[in-house]
Amino acid sequence: MANIAKKVSWSSRGDDRGERTPLLNGAEDGKYSNRQDIVRSRPKEIPHNEKLLSLKFESLDYDNSENQLFLEEERRMSHMGFRCLEITRWVICGLIGFLTGLIACMIDIAVEKLAGYKYLAVKQNIEKYTELGGLSISLILWAVLNSAFVMLGSLAVAFLEPIAAGSGIPQIKCFLNGVKIPRVVRLKTLVIKVFGVICSVAGGLAVGKEGPMIHSGAVVAAGVSQGRSTSLKKDFKIFEYFRRDTEKRDFVSAGAAAGVSAAFGAPVGGVLFSLEEGASFWNQLLTWRIFFASMVSTFTLNFFLSIYHGKPGQLSSPGLINFGRFDSDSVQYNLYEIPLFIIMGALGGVLGALFNIINYWLTIFRIRYIHRPCLQVMEAMLVAAVTATVSFAMIYFSNDCQPLGQDNTEEYPLQLFCADGEYNSMATAFFNTPERSVRSLFHNPPGTYNPVTLGVFTLAYFALAVWTYGLTVSAGVFIPSLLIGAAWGRLFGILLSFIASSQSIWADPGKYALIGAAAQLGGIVRMTLSLTVILVEATGNVTYGFPIMLVLMTAKIVGDYFIEGLYDVHIKLQSVPFLHWDAPPTSHWLTAREVMSSPVTCFNRVEKVGRIVDVLSNTSTNHNGFPVVSDTTENDEPGKICGLILRSQLIVLLKHKVFVERASSRLSQRKLQLKDFRDAYPRFPPIQSIHVSQDERECMMDLTEFMNPTPYTVPQETSLPRVFKLFRALGLRHLVVVDNENRVVGLVTRKDLARYHVGKDGLEELHLAQT
Amino acid sequence: MANIAKKVSWSSRGDDRGERTPLLNGAEDGKYSNRQDIVRSRPKEIPHNEKLLSLKFESLDYDNSENQLFLEEERRMSHMGFRCLEITRWVICGLIGFLTGLIACMIDIAVEKLAGYKYLAVKQNIEKYTELGGLSISLILWAVLNSAFVMLGSLAVAFLEPIAAGSGIPQIKCFLNGVKIPRVVRLKTLVIKVFGVICSVAGGLAVGKEGPMIHSGAVVAAGVSQGRSTSLKKDFKIFEYFRRDTEKRDFVSAGAAAGVSAAFGAPVGGVLFSLEEGASFWNQLLTWRIFFASMVSTFTLNFFLSIYHGKPGQLSSPGLINFGRFDSDSVQYNLYEIPLFIIMGALGGVLGALFNIINYWLTIFRIRYIHRPCLQVMEAMLVAAVTATVSFAMIYFSNDCQPLGQDNTEEYPLQLFCADGEYNSMATAFFNTPERSVRSLFHNPPGTYNPVTLGVFTLAYFALAVWTYGLTVSAGVFIPSLLIGAAWGRLFGILLSFIASSQSIWADPGKYALIGAAAQLGGIVRMTLSLTVILVEATGNVTYGFPIMLVLMTAKIVGDYFIEGLYDVHIKLQSVPFLHWDAPPTSHWLTAREVMSSPVTCFNRVEKVGRIVDVLSNTSTNHNGFPVVSDTTENDEPGKICGLILRSQLIVLLKHKVFVERASSRLSQRKLQLKDFRDAYPRFPPIQSIHVSQDERECMMDLTEFMNPTPYTVPQETSLPRVFKLFRALGLRHLVVVDNENRVVGLVTRKDLARYHVGKDGLEELHLAQT
Repeated sequence: MANIAKKVSWSSRGDDRGERTPLLNGAEDGKYSNRQDIVRSRPKEIPHNEKLLSLKFESLDYDNSENQLFLEEERRMSHMGFRCLEITRWVICGLIGFLTGLIACMIDIAVEKLAGYKYLAVKQNIEKYTELGGLSISLILWAVLNSAFVMLGSLAVAFLEPIAAGSGIPQIKCFLNGVKIPRVVRLKTLVIKVFGVICSVAGGLAVGKEGPMIHSGAVVAAGVSQGRSTSLKKDFKIFEYFRRDTEKRDFVSAGAAAGVSAAFGAPVGGVLFSLEEGASFWNQLLTWRIFFASMVSTFTLNFFLSIYHGKPGQLSSPGLINFGRFDSDSVQYNLYEIPLFIIMGALGGVLGALFNIINYWLTIFRIRYIHRPCLQVMEAMLVAAVTATVSFAMIYFSNDCQPLGQDNTEEYPLQLFCADGEYNSMATAFFNTPERSVRSLFHNPPGTYNPVTLGVFTLAYFALAVWTYGLTVSAGVFIPSLLIGAAWGRLFGILLSFIASSQSIWADPGKYALIGAAAQLGGIVRMTLSLTVILVEATGNVTYGFPIMLVLMTAKIVGDYFIEGLYDVHIKLQSVPFLHWDAPPTSHWLTAREVMSSPVTCFNRVEKVGRIVDVLSNTSTNHNGFPVVSDTTENDEPGKICGLILRSQLIVLLKHKVFVERASSRLSQRKLQLKDFRDAYPRFPPIQSIHVSQDERECMMDLTEFMNPTPYTVPQETSLPRVFKLFRALGLRHLVVVDNENRVVGLVTRKDLARYHVGKDGLEELHLAQT
Repeated sequence: MANIAKKVSWSSRGDDRGERTPLLNGAEDGKYSNRQDIVRSRPKEIPHNEKLLSLKFESLDYDNSENQLFLEEERRMSHMGFRCLEITRWVICGLIGFLTGLIACMIDIAVEKLAGYKYLAVKQNIEKYTELGGLSISLILWAVLNSAFVMLGSLAVAFLEPIAAGSGIPQIKCFLNGVKIPRVVRLKTLVIKVFGVICSVAGGLAVGKEGPMIHSGAVVAAGVSQGRSTSLKKDFKIFEYFRRDTEKRDFVSAGAAAGVSAAFGAPVGGVLFSLEEGASFWNQLLTWRIFFASMVSTFTLNFFLSIYHGKPGQLSSPGLINFGRFDSDSVQYNLYEIPLFIIMGALGGVLGALFNIINYWLTIFRIRYIHRPCLQVMEAMLVAAVTATVSFAMIYFSNDCQPLGQDNTEEYPLQLFCADGEYNSMATAFFNTPERSVRSLFHNPPGTYNPVTLGVFTLAYFALAVWTYGLTVSAGVFIPSLLIGAAWGRLFGILLSFIASSQSIWADPGKYALIGAAAQLGGIVRMTLSLTVILVEATGNVTYGFPIMLVLMTAKIVGDYFIEGLYDVHIKLQSVPFLHWDAPPTSHWLTAREVMSSPVTCFNRVEKVGRIVDVLSNTSTNHNGFPVVSDTTENDEPGKICGLILRSQLIVLLKHKVFVERASSRLSQRKLQLKDFRDAYPRFPPIQSIHVSQDERECMMDLTEFMNPTPYTVPQETSLPRVFKLFRALGLRHLVVVDNENRVVGLVTRKDLARYHVGKDGLEELHLAQT
C-alpha cells in the first residue's frame, strides 16, 4: 500500500536527494514513534490513502526564530534600514508581477500561434481531400498532430519533472497552507510547466492554461525573492535578508496572485485567491504588495499583448482570458430569474460532484496501475488521439451549419459539409482554443447554436475533461469546466426561451451560459469568494456579482454533500497534512494533552555533540524541532523550557563545528552569523554528509545563542480549538506544551492538528502513514 | 488640559452612566499606577493630546474566555448544533445586509426628495424676483432653507447623541481595531445619524452620505446580531449565543462591509474595507459571510430603488453612488499618460495633506473653544449660511453659460442670467447633490465646463469642505473629496488638451477627473487597497484599476510625508489606543519586561469576597482583568499562573452571590450558567451598584469554574514585535507575562503596545493620560 502514496505524480520521488531523502524528509516534526496513537494508526488494511496523513512533508515555519543572532541583526538595523528593506520588498513584488506577466504573454502567444498553424494545416488537408472523399486522412493528420504535441509535453513532464503535471493549484494551495512540497517552486519545474502547458493546449486536449499560470507565478516569486537559483548554481548575492520561510511564503502569495491576475485579468481576484488559500494573518502592507504584484502582472501582460496585436500602449485589454464584456445596457436580470439561477447552481453542484467522483476513481486507478512514466506518456497520447477522434466524429455527424456573419467573429471557420457562406459550428467549437469557445457561448447572438449540438458537445467534453485531468501533462481545469458549464447553461437558456418566448428578457442565452459556467466551475473547484471576483473581473461587469455568488454558493453546498472539491480530493490523495481554517467545531473535548506528541526529545542548553548527532541520525524518529531545557533538572524529570532549536540550525552548527572547546582554543575563529544559516537555506545538508570525529563527539555545543529563546507554549489543559487557533494564526511549526512548572511535556506539530477532521459521523481521526 | 480629551464630540460624555462612568471606564486593563512609567508620563505641559493615550477606552476581547462553563456548553453541543449556529450566522448576515440596504435606500430617497423640493422652491423664487432685480431675496430664502435643515440635524446630533457627529468611519475603525467606543453601536445613534445625514445633505453642506452609511451598517449589525435592543428594553431571546465580543465584532465587520457596499455599490470593496480595518485573523467562512452581507445589501438597495424608479425587478443599477460607467471602448489610457497620473497622485497627496493640516488645527480650535452644544449648532448653521452665500456669489459672478443639450443630462438646470436654451453651469454644480456633480465631471463631454469656473469652484469647495468636516453634523468626507479632486482633475485634463491638442486621446477630460478624484480622496483618507476596489466597482470598469492604484499609492506616500490620514488624525486627537498592523520595526530591543505593566493585582483561586470588592472598587487602579494564581505560594513571591478572570465576570459572580459558603448551605440554588453572563453583556453593572454586606465580605469565592484556565502567556524576554504579533493576531485583551517558573510578573494590555510608534526620529513613546 505504501507505494500508492509514493507514486502519485507530484509526490516526492526523492530523485534529487538520492536515498537520503527519506531520512531528512521522512518524518514531520516531533516524536511519534513511542506514543500510543501510533498503535492505533497501524490498521491491518488501509482502505484508501486519503484516510492517511503522510509524514514525509515538512512544514514551513512562519514564525521567525528570534534567536540572539536575529535580534542582534534587527537591533543593529536603523530605521532607514527597515525602510530600505520595505522598498526592496516592493521592488521584488514589482519584478514578480513583471516576470509573471511576461511568461503569461509568452504562453498565450505560443498557444495562439501553434493553434493557428494546426488549423491551417488541417484546413488545407481537408480542402484537398474532401473532394476525394478521404476525410479519414484529415482525421489521421489531426490526431497525429495532436498526439505529437501531447507526447512532447508529456515526455517532458513524466521524465524530467513529474511535479509539473496537472494544474499546480493543489500544490500551491499546500505551499501557501504551510506544507513544503518538494521541488514545487524550482526553476526546472517552471520551465517544464510552461513547455508542457503550451504542448497540451496546442495538442487540443480539454485543458486550460490558467492553473499552470498560477503555479508559474509562484515559482517566479520563490526564485526572484531569494536572489539566487540553486538549479543554475547562481547566487546574485541580493535579497539575502529574505532567505527564510516567512518572507518566502509572503512572496509566493504575491506570485500566485500575480498568476491569477495574468490568467484572468483579475488583480483583485488574485489577491483574494492568495488570501483565501494562504494568508493566516492578514497584514495590510503584505496585502498591498500582493495587490501591487497583481496589478503589475496584468499591466505587463496587457502592454506586451498590445504590442503583439499591433496597438502598442493601448492598455485597456483584459488578461489572458477574455470573456468579453457583458454590456450592462442590453443585459440585465430580473428578480424572478433568481430561482432559476439557484436551480442552475444546484445542477452545477451535482455535475461538479459527478466530475470529481469519476476523477477520484480514475486517479485511484492511475495511482495503482499507471505509475511508470512511459505508461503515463502513452495514456496522454491515447487521450489526445481519442479527443481528436471524438471531435472529428461529432463534427462529421453534426449538420449544424450557421451562416458566416458579416462581422465574422469566428476566427477559425470550417465549411466542411455546409453550404457556401456557412460554417460548421461544432467544428468551430473543437478547433477554437477553449477560451474562444467560452467567449462565443457567452456572447454569440441567440440562434447561433443548435440545442442538439450543445447537448452532445456537453456530454462529450465532460467525458474528455474528466479523463484528461490527472494526466501526466501540465494542464488546468478552469477553462474546461467553464466550457462545459457554458454549454449546458446556454442549452438551459435556449430551452427556457422555447418555454417562455413572450418575454424578451429570456431571449439572451449568453446570460445563462455565464451562470452555467459559474455553476459548473463552482461545483468542481468549490471556491466562492475569489471565484466570484475572478468571474466578475473577467467579464468586466459587476451586475452579475450577486447571481454569480448565489450560484457558486449553491453549487458548493450541493456539491459538498457528495464529495469535496477537486483540488481537495487530490490533496487528500497525497495524504498532505493540510490545515483548514478552524478546528472541527466538536473538538472542544480534546485538549493539548491528548493531541500532542510525547515524550519529546529535548536538548540541554549546553549539549554533548555526540548526543546531538545521534538524535539527528536516528532514522526512526527524524524530528525537526527540539525544545531546549535548562540543565538543572534531574534525569527523570522533564526540564524547564528555555528555548527551541530546529534540525536545520543544528546541522549548520555541526557543519561549522561551533563547539565550546573550539571557541576557547581558537579565538580568531569567525563567529557564526545569520548569513551562514541563510546561505544553507532552504536545502540544508543531511546529517549523514557531516563528518564528526570521535573526539568531536565528546565536545559540547552551547545552543543558547542559536535557539529561539521564546517559543510559544500552551498549558496541557488548553482545548484543541484554542491550540489550533494559535497554531494557525501565527503559522507555527512547533508548539511546545508545558505543565504548570513550565516543564516540557509534549510538542504539537502540523500533523497532530491535521489529523482531526469532520466526517459524516462527527469527528474523525486520520491515521499517520508509515512513509 | 484634561477637558480637551473629554470634550471632543465623540468621546464618552459619560451621561448614560452618570458619575460612575469614570470608575468603570476610567482605566484600561491592568495596573499602572505603581509603575515608574507613569511618572514619565506626567509631563508638566502637554503639547497636544495626540501625544497622549487615553485610558478611558475599554478593549474588545476577541479571545474567548474558555472557562468550564463555556467548555461544558461547547461539549454538550452536537455537530448538528454547530451547523445550526453556522446557518444562524448566515441568516443574521443576510438580515444585516437587507436592513442596511433598506436604510441606504431610505436615506437616498429622502435626500433626493428634499433636494428636489428645495430646488423647486428656490427656482420659483428666482423666477419671481429676477424680474424685480431682487436676487438677494432668493439668496436669503436659500440660505434660510439650508440653515434650517442643518439646524435640525445639528440640534439632534449635539443634544441627543454627539457620537453621531462626523462620518463615523473613525469610530468604526476603532471598533474593528478592538476599542470599545461608548455608545457607537446603539440604536439611538443610528436614528440620529440617519436623520442627521439627511438634514446635512439636504442643507447643502459640502458633505456626503457615504460615511454615515457605513456607520449605520455597523449599528444594524451590532443590534441584529444580539437579538435585543437595550435602548428599547426589548429582548427577543434569540441569537443569545452571539452575545460576546468575538461574535459581535465579526458581525460588525459584516455590517460595515454592507454599508460600504450599499454606499458605493461595491460589495468586494466593502469586504476589503472591513478586512483592511478590522480583521486580524483571516477566516474564510467569516469572509464569505461578510461578502454575503455585502451582496445582499447591494441587492436590496437595487431592488427597492428599481421599484422607486418605476422599473421593479430590474437589478442592474449600481449602489447609492452612481458614477456612471466608463465605456471601455471609447475610453482608454496610454503608457505615456502614466507619468501624468503619478504627478496627479502627488498633487492629490499634497492637497490632501493640506486639507488634513487645516482640519487638524480647526479641530484643535473646536476642542478648545466650541464644546458647548449650542455653540456647535450655531457653528453648523453659520457654515450652512456661508456655504449658501459663497455658492450664490459664485453663481452670481459666474457667466459660464452652457447650452441645454438635447438629452438634458442635468436634472436641475438653472437659467439665471443665461440666454434662453442655456443654463448656468456653476449653479448646476451647487444645486446638484455632490454625487451628481461628480458624475457630471466624469462624464460630461469635453467643453462642458469653463476652466475658470472649475478653478474657482475647486478653491471654494475645498475651503468649505475643510470647514465642514468636524462640524457637529452627520456627514461624510468621501464625496466632497471626490468632488474637489474631480474638479481639479478635469481642469488638469482641459489644460492638457490645450497643450497637446493634436492627440485625440487627451480630448477626454473625464478620465482626468476620475484620476484627480482618486488622488484627492487618497490624499485625504490614505486608504489604498479597498479604495482602489471601491472606485473600480463604483465606476464599473476594471481598465483604470492600475492607474487608480498607482495614483492612490503616490498620494499616500506623498501625503504621509506631511501628516497622517484624516481618520487617523481624528483618532489620535481622541487619544485612542489604536493598534497598527505591526510593531514599529525598530522595537526589537524592547522586551515584554519593559513593556508590561507591573506589579499585577492577582487573585487566588479561592479568594475572599471582601478583597475582590475592594480591588474592584479601587478607583485609582480600575483593572479589567486579573490573573488567578495558585494559592500555594508565600506572600511575597508572585504565584504561579492558573487562570485569568475579567472584571465583568467577577461582577456577575458578585451579583449572583456565588460564594463557597452559600453553595454548601443552599444546595437547591441554581448553578450559574453562561446565560447569566450573556444577559449582562455588554453593559455590566458598576461595582458600586452591587451591595455586599459585612458578613458576605468574609465569604470566599471559588473562581476555578469561571476563570479562563489557559490564558496566553509569554516569557519576560520576548521581544516587543513578538508580543505584538501574538496580541494582534489573536485579538487579545490581556497577555500575561510570566517568569521561568510560570509566575505572574506582569500584564500586557492594549495601551502598553499602542504606546510605541514610529515618529520622525525613530521610536517614540506616547504618554498615558490621567483621564
